[in-house]
Amino acid sequence: MSPFEETEEFVRDVTSSIVAVTGGEATALHEPEFDGNEWNYVKECIDTNFVSSAGKYVDRFERELEAYTGARHAIAVSNGTSALHISLLLAGVGPGDEVLVPALTFVATANAVIYCGAEPHFVDSELDSLGIDPEKLRSYLESTTTLIAGQCRNRVSGKVIRAMVPMHTFGHPSKIRELLDLCMEFSITMVEDAAESLGSFYSNKHTGTFGLLGTLSFNGNKTITTGGGGAILTDDSNLARKAKHLTTTAKVPHKWRYIHDEVGYNYRLPNLNAALGCAQLENIESKISRKRALSELYQEKFNNLNGVSLIREPTGCRSNYWLQAILLNPQFISSRDQILERTNEIGISTRPAWDLLTTLKPYKDFPSMDMAQADELAKRVINLPSSPQLIKAKK
Amino acid sequence: MSPFEETEEFVRDVTSSIVAVTGGEATALHEPEFDGNEWNYVKECIDTNFVSSAGKYVDRFERELEAYTGARHAIAVSNGTSALHISLLLAGVGPGDEVLVPALTFVATANAVIYCGAEPHFVDSELDSLGIDPEKLRSYLESTTTLIAGQCRNRVSGKVIRAMVPMHTFGHPSKIRELLDLCMEFSITMVEDAAESLGSFYSNKHTGTFGLLGTLSFNGNKTITTGGGGAILTDDSNLARKAKHLTTTAKVPHKWRYIHDEVGYNYRLPNLNAALGCAQLENIESKISRKRALSELYQEKFNNLNGVSLIREPTGCRSNYWLQAILLNPQFISSRDQILERTNEIGISTRPAWDLLTTLKPYKDFPSMDMAQADELAKRVINLPSSPQLIKAKK
Ligand SMILES: Cc1ncc(COP(=O)(O)O)c(C=O)c1O
Ligand SMILES: Cc1ncc(COP(=O)(O)O)c(C=O)c1O
Repeated sequence: MSPFEETEEFVRDVTSSIVAVTGGEATALHEPEFDGNEWNYVKECIDTNFVSSAGKYVDRFERELEAYTGARHAIAVSNGTSALHISLLLAGVGPGDEVLVPALTFVATANAVIYCGAEPHFVDSELDSLGIDPEKLRSYLESTTTLIAGQCRNRVSGKVIRAMVPMHTFGHPSKIRELLDLCMEFSITMVEDAAESLGSFYSNKHTGTFGLLGTLSFNGNKTITTGGGGAILTDDSNLARKAKHLTTTAKVPHKWRYIHDEVGYNYRLPNLNAALGCAQLENIESKISRKRALSELYQEKFNNLNGVSLIREPTGCRSNYWLQAILLNPQFISSRDQILERTNEIGISTRPAWDLLTTLKPYKDFPSMDMAQADELAKRVINLPSSPQLIKAKK
Repeated sequence: MSPFEETEEFVRDVTSSIVAVTGGEATALHEPEFDGNEWNYVKECIDTNFVSSAGKYVDRFERELEAYTGARHAIAVSNGTSALHISLLLAGVGPGDEVLVPALTFVATANAVIYCGAEPHFVDSELDSLGIDPEKLRSYLESTTTLIAGQCRNRVSGKVIRAMVPMHTFGHPSKIRELLDLCMEFSITMVEDAAESLGSFYSNKHTGTFGLLGTLSFNGNKTITTGGGGAILTDDSNLARKAKHLTTTAKVPHKWRYIHDEVGYNYRLPNLNAALGCAQLENIESKISRKRALSELYQEKFNNLNGVSLIREPTGCRSNYWLQAILLNPQFISSRDQILERTNEIGISTRPAWDLLTTLKPYKDFPSMDMAQADELAKRVINLPSSPQLIKAKK
């Protein structure tokens, strides 16, 4: 076969493996699924006039998120981005600080750092978990930072590296224990971006509960959705109280006076959206078990295909398999765009990983370590249709 | 009568005048009213899986807001606070700038200035409209600022006064023409905080459409609600495009790549909430006409009571009468808290105007002019129950 024919065959094989799972009809990357009490709860909000800040669903959603994740406190907010913003503020991130952020993540992770007046400092990822590479980061921190007065100082910029934001990519838990050790050793506060990993556990502990604070997203493309929404997780009662205060305009309780004791935010999750969240959360395990079965199905199809492998959960973890993904062997990197073209042409939504944040105009001039692995991943990953609906629910 | 008996009689009279309107049952300050297509539209979102960023209601809500307000562009966002934040950014407000903000407003008006890295500069209000006093502000600007290179510079702080944010208090249009003249003369950009004044017109032009940009809120306590929500109004197509871009993570359109060309925000209004907004907007004129009738009813009751007057719409304006308010004569200032106590005790929600922002911990050290009038207003105003439901709808 000529190289051209070889590529063509590969593109065809990958496409037909995907179609063998999705069934060939137009298929979204990830669609919400409302098959429980969504309408009942939302209707109740409308019928009782409690759609906004008053109403029982926000409280209930928070308590149920606590029960589900094992976090002592969950604070519902307007989305995953605002959850990150407030969590970083509460971790003490401010002007003049740097925050370690993977280059391979959705842009919101870095944006939240900027909202605090701080700078992202980009770090590389590793192949097993797609998260921050703890080994490589250790050498990097050892050679470029100094611990002064209990603070990790970047010797190049002179700034304090205040926090690290590991992100659990596509739902797969990062090497969070190693990253926690690193944080301890270098006096860095961990805030976990668990936007993609509700329902993902690292040795039986929920992602987002390892750091001082963790954040969730309930955007429309996530495992469960509130339309738009997010949450902050923490075991620290004091931080939880502050998170609630800061996200609700920092209003001091009073019978009628409007006293605000600091510059707060309107990051409330409306009761209407929380109602949707309560209903969604009731069925999360059904959704995740079908998303896991979907991975098995893709595995069957991709098992015998050379040049590509399906990304599976790291050992010792339970992943929610939020977004299914394949990894092209390096020699097929040049086929990636053809696969994307071919599948999207026939209505099967696929997409590459994010462009590395270090390549985006607003982020190309911030501090960054060598990106060899993240760069490879960005070129080799393709996300596949991942909705739980692709597998029939067991009734 | 002793002064004590006189006060007691006044408190009793005011309370019974309110009860004569509300009917004596527990009455909220402002309750949402869902008596149209709310159910239908929200159910359609759930049935079709379009609750989040995809879906037709956001577009439709924006087009309908344009038709209703006469603004050439409306951009739906997560709430009134985020609308102010983005509007100020688009007005060029940044670090080192000052922004003129009334001291008598909800704290969000000033918070949004801080989010931009700028400083609020507090200004006084006047009695007719409860908005910024244009005359007093003119003298103040004349005596404290200098126009240098087309920029209004505060001679005390040396900073540029970049923008002014008039706020249409309780729905009553400010003296917006005079304020616009002032902005022209002093080279200051106007951003209107019309959070409270959807449906309020100043000589037949909708509030929020006078400045370069204007903002609305659809919080649960507003004339119409989306649970939580807001909008940016502007006639400038370029700013409208930028507002949409900045509020949706600044993502550049691409078949599958995630490219963001600036630091954006997640200030989207979810489709679910926009659906509620579309239904609410269909009935806004019914709500406002009942809120106006409610003012007539209060007027009847307060007409013959000495020591207090009902706040009515400024001449030449149509007010939405978002929050009904009475103004105590100066000699009865000391009765305010007793009236608040008495009414709230029997379940009739009333509240004072906001504490002046210049008295709040986070804002007490920012530049400020003399606050004689705002200070009086803060002491003399009481808001009364204002829901449209207090008047029976004409079928
Ligand atoms: C890794 C990551 N971080 C943050 C976010 C932001 O969440 P949201 O869209 O709810 O603001 C998302 C999802 O959109 C995400 O995937
Ligand atoms: C004057 C004023 N500005 C801004 C806001 C902020 O709007 P939102 O609560 O929708 O963020 C409000 C209402 O809450 C308001 O009354």
